[in-house]
Order: sequence, then structure tokens, then C-alpha cells
Amino acid sequence: LKYHDIDCVINGEYRIKCRRETSEVFVPFSFVQKYFEIYGKISTEDGFEKLAWEHSYSTVHRPREHYSPGGVFMSFEFYNVEERDRVRCISGMEGVPLSTQWTPDGHYYPIQISQFGLSHLSKYLTQGEPEVLILEDGEDDHLENWILPDKRYKLQLQKDKSLETTVVEFTTSDSMKYPGISIPADEKDDFVLCADLRFASNGSITVTIETPNLQLFHIHYVLSSKLISLDGHDIYYGLGERRGQWIHITRTVSVDFDKGLALKFNKVKRTKMKLKVSRITDVSVRGHGWLDNLTLSTTAHLDNFYNAANWLVYHQNDRGGWPIMVQRSLIPGVLELPPGWYSAMAQGQAMSLLVRAYLRTQNTKYLQAAVDAMKLFEIDSTQGGVLTKFADRYDWYEEYPTTPSSFVLNGFIYSLLGLYDLKEVTDGEDSKMASKLYSNGMQTLKKMLLMFDTGSGTFYDLRHITLGIAPNRARWDYHTTHINQLLQLSVIDDDPLFKNTAQRWMDYMKGKRSKHN
Amino acid sequence: LKYHDIDCVINGEYRIKCRRETSEVFVPFSFVQKYFEIYGKISTEDGFEKLAWEHSYSTVHRPREHYSPGGVFMSFEFYNVEERDRVRCISGMEGVPLSTQWTPDGHYYPIQISQFGLSHLSKYLTQGEPEVLILEDGEDDHLENWILPDKRYKLQLQKDKSLETTVVEFTTSDSMKYPGISIPADEKDDFVLCADLRFASNGSITVTIETPNLQLFHIHYVLSSKLISLDGHDIYYGLGERRGQWIHITRTVSVDFDKGLALKFNKVKRTKMKLKVSRITDVSVRGHGWLDNLTLSTTAHLDNFYNAANWLVYHQNDRGGWPIMVQRSLIPGVLELPPGWYSAMAQGQAMSLLVRAYLRTQNTKYLQAAVDAMKLFEIDSTQGGVLTKFADRYDWYEEYPTTPSSFVLNGFIYSLLGLYDLKEVTDGEDSKMASKLYSNGMQTLKKMLLMFDTGSGTFYDLRHITLGIAPNRARWDYHTTHINQLLQLSVIDDDPLFKNTAQRWMDYMKGKRSKHN
Ligand SMILES: [Ca+2]
Ligand SMILES: [Ca+2]
Repeated sequence: LKYHDIDCVINGEYRIKCRRETSEVFVPFSFVQKYFEIYGKISTEDGFEKLAWEHSYSTVHRPREHYSPGGVFMSFEFYNVEERDRVRCISGMEGVPLSTQWTPDGHYYPIQISQFGLSHLSKYLTQGEPEVLILEDGEDDHLENWILPDKRYKLQLQKDKSLETTVVEFTTSDSMKYPGISIPADEKDDFVLCADLRFASNGSITVTIETPNLQLFHIHYVLSSKLISLDGHDIYYGLGERRGQWIHITRTVSVDFDKGLALKFNKVKRTKMKLKVSRITDVSVRGHGWLDNLTLSTTAHLDNFYNAANWLVYHQNDRGGWPIMVQRSLIPGVLELPPGWYSAMAQGQAMSLLVRAYLRTQNTKYLQAAVDAMKLFEIDSTQGGVLTKFADRYDWYEEYPTTPSSFVLNGFIYSLLGLYDLKEVTDGEDSKMASKLYSNGMQTLKKMLLMFDTGSGTFYDLRHITLGIAPNRARWDYHTTHINQLLQLSVIDDDPLFKNTAQRWMDYMKGKRSKHN
Repeated sequence: LKYHDIDCVINGEYRIKCRRETSEVFVPFSFVQKYFEIYGKISTEDGFEKLAWEHSYSTVHRPREHYSPGGVFMSFEFYNVEERDRVRCISGMEGVPLSTQWTPDGHYYPIQISQFGLSHLSKYLTQGEPEVLILEDGEDDHLENWILPDKRYKLQLQKDKSLETTVVEFTTSDSMKYPGISIPADEKDDFVLCADLRFASNGSITVTIETPNLQLFHIHYVLSSKLISLDGHDIYYGLGERRGQWIHITRTVSVDFDKGLALKFNKVKRTKMKLKVSRITDVSVRGHGWLDNLTLSTTAHLDNFYNAANWLVYHQNDRGGWPIMVQRSLIPGVLELPPGWYSAMAQGQAMSLLVRAYLRTQNTKYLQAAVDAMKLFEIDSTQGGVLTKFADRYDWYEEYPTTPSSFVLNGFIYSLLGLYDLKEVTDGEDSKMASKLYSNGMQTLKKMLLMFDTGSGTFYDLRHITLGIAPNRARWDYHTTHINQLLQLSVIDDDPLFKNTAQRWMDYMKGKRSKHN
């Protein structure tokens, strides 16, 4: 017989069935994959099947050759924050994501909000201006595209004094039972809805969408403080109780649709049922109010960016921080943070975002918020701040300011990037402080970076050292975050440590290991 | 076809040939073995072939339930120091091994000498007294077993005043050309030769051995300062220029034979040519001298133990140290020690040995040497001592006191065991100092131990942290040394850190890893 069965005894502990062929033994890949936690799948290449054996599953992003505090943040143009499962939805009231990380109720998580803003700015800077379809701007002197289903409904142009432009006044029943005044769209690509709206009554704006199966759904943006709800084919987002004032809305309809359906169907089901937006058929308004600049566009990145920046300015407290209002358990019962903790990563990512908002607008409210965000870096984590020291010696800014310290690497580096951005745009005392915090942190990083090197990957944190427990290895996507961060740092600091370490850490992703003695 | 070929593409980089059988792909073990650096071999079990897949290759020794500074050292009863390739031979002058580590010329390496002594004591304590065949002790009043090949040769009993016993005086030609006076042995098991000898002329003692192929070889122990040489079937060991004084020799003939043949043949050849001792046929003496207590025994562990202890006492310098006279390059050009360096491990292992010699003999010269060996623990490694600090904060005793520090784990722990042994047997100021050094070191160890945990093995040192380079992973035998040490520490210190870490590190040897996030 050419080949035959042979048992393989694994570490003297258990057996698997293998195949022997002359002097070679063939072992089942399904076992190898599980034992070593690697990846593989069979695909077809030029008509031949092959098994693609992958040591890791994530992707490294090479940074640009230059870095500027006003520019693209790392490779955040590849982030799609709002599409993540742990984003419940983009709030209609705040225009920023609501996180369900660590609590199903959702909370405004400053890190997620900053990353949302930074990713949209980075997309804007790399993709450029969107295509915009103007449905209505009040400037054309005619309103014949609008459909009025009831003779009592009214639509007219009106000069708005506060906006100094012509807007459209609409008057309909505010009841959801009756159709509103609508404008057809037939839009298959541009799924971002923007509008300026002012309601005199309890009004709403509705987008009707069609799925690939030709099902129709309605997404209603209503004057309510209820975040999100789903009722059959109707999804509701609350815009807040904001009667009588102009409000600007920016809604990624495809995301709003998906988050609405997610209230009832999980991702697998939504995919299977083809519950996604293939067309926007029309936009309609109800109640009595005014409307301007109603558009559908491919993107509205800058809107999202400023929503995030404004959220940070508005919600920063007198300590310069954005308290995180959920309990965070790194290790239940051992490393826990009660609600209200601050994160150096949140502070730093906010700085990166606020500095960019300042550089685009020259509005000092953004810069001041970024400067104020430094305060917590000087306060010990045992005192409610984010500062800790390794070996009572090296300053470290904690993503999770636990006691004992956890020393999460990626959060620390994000905080350093925030301080870098800030030191680059400030002067005087603010610049001195930012520079000092940055250089102390960088000195620590250079001393401690290699503590995260496992010889075949990286550690997520140093809990093993502070608690004397099993190390917490970084899964591959955190490992690549580490690499992306080092590559970014190598652009702003020419210490070869960053470039060399990043290269070795990339090698680990292909199964290479550091040498043993 | 039941199974067919399929290519496997490894990390998008290269291809190997695999086999597909229904939905399973079988990959060649030879590749898996190389890629992941595991081990495997085919053997037969109950008439069936099997492949034994081993994640690691070395063995953990569970320590005894109790530890005493006078007892077995760790599991050193399993060590066979003198059989190692890097032992050139046991010196005829010193009775201790000469190391060829880092220099082919050989040097007296205090760590090896202490380990030689500790292993022999540990063997003695676990194996008990040897079987001893007395060939001659001068007490039987007859000398008829001896063969005198020349009528001019003489042999007679004589009372020796210094030894206060009857000894045998022999008178022969001292030329190697002629046979000496010999006593037949026909000994097939006990290959350790001991004797008390005093030479008036340029004499020698010779052991004739037979190999499995019935070849005869002679091992001559001669009054010369030449270490070792080989000339055909004659091997020479120098006993030093020690004419006129009583000398005690203890020779493991099988080892002496092997080291002699190693001058010409490598290990593979020696095995192939069956160059090993199967029988001692006789022992002979030449020249004019006196002989007593000529024995062949299974072992002479205590002799070896005291040879090592005495070597340490004799060669300790005024700094309390045993300078190591070879250059040591941890990293050529970067981490180097010029000849004359001290090692905390050498100091500590010497303490463990000297304390045991003291406890067996109550001779305070041993204890004083152990106490003096502490001095270098208070001197910074930059000042020629063995003390360094991690993060300017934690005292660490360096096996290799490089600048920057290397933080070799196993050497540090051996030094702590030495300090422990010493603090247990001293009192007064000596005890205070030993206790302080021990507790400072243990405190450091508890803080830093987990820095050596890779999540799937251990690091040998912390060069990656001090130099910012690739980590130096410990190969499996060093990994098991770490485990053996932790298990030993867990007997003398009940901090669960030691037991728990040892358990996890044992799990790593079976392919388990710490969790990733
Ligand atoms: Ca207008
Ligand atoms: Ca005698």
C-alpha cells in the first residue's frame, strides 16, 4: 500500500489519526490549525485547489512618509467605526456613535467618538469632496418636484433671517398615519442624508428605502429623545426635543437602517434576509417646519468629524476629562474601574481630534479643550487621574487606570500621539507642558516597549508583571495595531527602535520567532 | 481517487505539497516540525508504528518536599557534569573539571566546579555509600597479589608515620618503556580508582582497561604538570609536580578514558568504534614510592565533592571571588566581559557547595569562604561586582555582569539559593548580611519573574529590554531549569507565585499557551 494510517501521540497525552507515506507522516491540518491557532482555508487558484495557510489574520498599514497634526491620523481612513457591532447607532441627538461595549444600554464612549471623528477626517483627506445630489436648497424658485398627497398640505419658499438664505416652509399633519410631503430620489449610491431643519410642531423627516428584495422600509427622524426603535418596517431615530431651533442632521442612511434592523435580527440573519439599502426612493417631511439644504451624498465626513469634535467640547468636564460612565472589568474582582473613570487614551485621541478641528477652523475652543485634556496626565491614577509609574520610575499614561496598573500598550501610544499633536500646535506654557508629558512618555516607551515583545507576538498589557498572573497575549488585530503605531512613531521619531521592532513584529505575523539560545 | 495532491501556500510566501482526503487536508509533519520547531519520531508500540509528537524535549524534576542547606541541591543528583562535552577532563592536579566553554584551551570555571561538587554530593546523598573493592591497603601482611616483572623490582610493607598506617613501598624503573609492578583487577563495574600515593622519584600509576572489542589501553597518571595527552593506546594525566608528598587521587577511569580518546575522536566515532571501558584489567605503579588505600569503587562522590570545595577555598581571591579568566561575549561587540569577571551564579553556587562542606565537616574554612563570597554582591557590576539594578530600583545579581545589564534568570536564582543556604547556617553580622541580600533579591524576583514569561515559554535574559533588540528565548532545557528552580523556591517560600508560575511554564512544554485577548 502506498500510504496507510498511523497514530500520532501528542505530548504523550492523546492520539490523532495521521497518514504515512514512505518516510513522511501527514498530519491533519484541522488539528495543526487548532493546536497552534493558525488559519487556513481552501480556495481555487487557476482552476486548482490550494490551502492557504495563514499565521495571522490582520493587516499592517504602512503610514505616510510625513505626519502632520492636521492630517490623516495613522491609517484611520480604513476604520469604519459606526459599522462596528459594538456601536448601537449614531445618536440622532448627538450625531456621534453610542457604544454598547461593556454595557448593553449603551454609553457615549469618548474613545469611540474621537475615533469616529478621526476616521471621518482621515477619509475626507484621502477621498476628497463627496458627490452631492441637492434635493432641495430653496434657491431654484420652484417646488414642482415635491409631492403633496393632501390638498390641505402646504409648501412655500421663505427667506430665513437667521440663515440668510431661502428655505422651504412645509405644513402637514404631524401624524405618522398619513404620508408627509415627499420628494422622490431614486438614489442608488449616495446614502448620506443631510438637511437643515426647523420644526414648529412635532414634525419629522423620513427616508424611504428599498432593499434588494424590493421591500420598502421607512427611517423616521423624529423630535423625540428616544434613541432608536423598530416597529415592523418603520425605524425611528430621536433628534431630541429641539422644537423651534435650526438643527443640522447628517445621517448615513445605510448605517441607520442596519442598526435599526439589528434591534431584531442578528448580522447573519440580516445578511441572509438581504436587509440592506439598495435604493433611496424618496424623502418626506411631516408637521409644520422649515427645510433647507436637503442633500443625498456619498459621504459627509466633515460633518461627522465636527459632530465628534463638538461633542468633546460640549461634554468635557472641569477636570478636562471625559468620564467614562460604565464599569470596566479588566479582570473581574481584581482589575476593575467603577463608572466615571478617565482614560489616557480617550484624552489623547480627543487631543488628536481637537487639534485637527482647531487647525481646520482656527476656533480656539477646540484648542482649549485639547489643552485642558492634559490636566489628568499629571494626576496619579490612584487619585482619579491617568498617570502611573512603572517601578516607581517611568511615567506611563493608562488607558485603564487600574490599581495595580495594567500598562495597556496601544492606549499609551495613542495618548502619546495626542500629546505630540498638541505640543506641535501650542506655544508658551501649554507647549511646555505638552512637550514635557510627551517626552516623559516617549522615554518610558523606549525603555519599556520591548517588555511587550513575546518573541513570537506581543502582550496587550503588563498585567502578568503587576499581578504575577498569566500574560495577556495580544490577539493579531491588537498586534497589528501595535505595529501600525510603531510605524507611525518611526515617522515622528527616528530612534531605530521603532522601525526595527515593527519589522520584527511583522515577521512574527508570518510565523517567524526571535531566536532562542 | 480517495486522496489527491493539493498545494498549501504558506503565508503567501511559498508552497508545500499536501494531501487532500475528503474535507481534510493532511500536511507533512516534517514541515510542521520545522515551522513550529517541535519534535517527533516514529517508534513502535505493541507492534504498531506511531509518531510521537513532542512539544519540548526536556524533563522537569519535582523537588523534594523539604529543602535543607546541607542536603541534596535541587535535582543535581541527575547531573553528570564531567561527562559533558564542554568538560575537557578532570584535572589530575586539581581533581576538578576543566571547562572548554568559550575557550578551547580550557579554564577552571567556578560554576562548573561547584556544580560538579554539588552533583556528587547530591548523588552521594541519594545513592548512599559505594561498593568498594580494596586492591591494597597494606593491612593484610601479604603482597602476593602483586606481579613483579623484574627481579630487581621491590615491594614491601612499611609503617608510615604521617599517615599512621602501614603502606606499601615500591621500587621499579620509572621508565614507561618497562612494565611496572601490577595488581590484577578483572573489574567490570567499579571504575573509580582511588589511591594515596607518595613518589620519591618520577613515578606514575597506570590503569589498564579493556574495551568491548578487547582492545587494551593504558591510562597513566604521572608526576607532570601536563594536563592530558594521548599517544596511541596510552593516555596521560598529569598529577602535578608533587614529588615527596602524599597525594590522594580519585579518578573516574571511564571518564578519563573517554576524555583521552576525545583528543582524537569525536563522540560519534568513539561510540562507533566502541571506545569505552568494559573492564579494568590491572593497576600498576612505576618509580620509587609509597602506596596505600588503592581501591576500585562504583563511585567516590564525597572525594569529588571535597575536591571541588577545596578548590574553591584555595582559589578564592581577596575580593571573595573566583574570577573567570575567559572573555565572555553574550553579544559580540555589545555585551562582552573581558577575562577576570565575576559571576553572581558562581558566587552563589560556591556558597551552596561550601555551606554543605562546612555542615559535613564543621571546618570553618568552608563557611568563611562562603561568607567572603558575599562581598561582591554589594559591589556594582560597573565596579567589578555582580550587583545591578533594574530600573534603578530592584537589586539583581548578575550571572554575567555586563553593561548594560543582561538579567539572566537562572543565574540570578542560583545566586539566591546560595544566599539562602548561607543565611540559614550563619549568625550575627554574616547572617544579617546574607538575609538582607537574599530578601532584596527575592523581592526583585517576585517583581520581575513574570518579565521572563513569553506566554508560551520563557526568556533566558532581558537583553531585549536593556538593548531594545530581539528577545533571547530560552531553549527548552533552560526553560526546564527555570521550572526546576521555581519548584525548588516554592519549597522554601510559600508565595503562590512560584508554584503557579511553574505550573503554567510546565503547561507551555505541552504546547499550551497563556490566553490572548
Ligand atoms: Ca437655501
Ligand atoms: Ca594502610
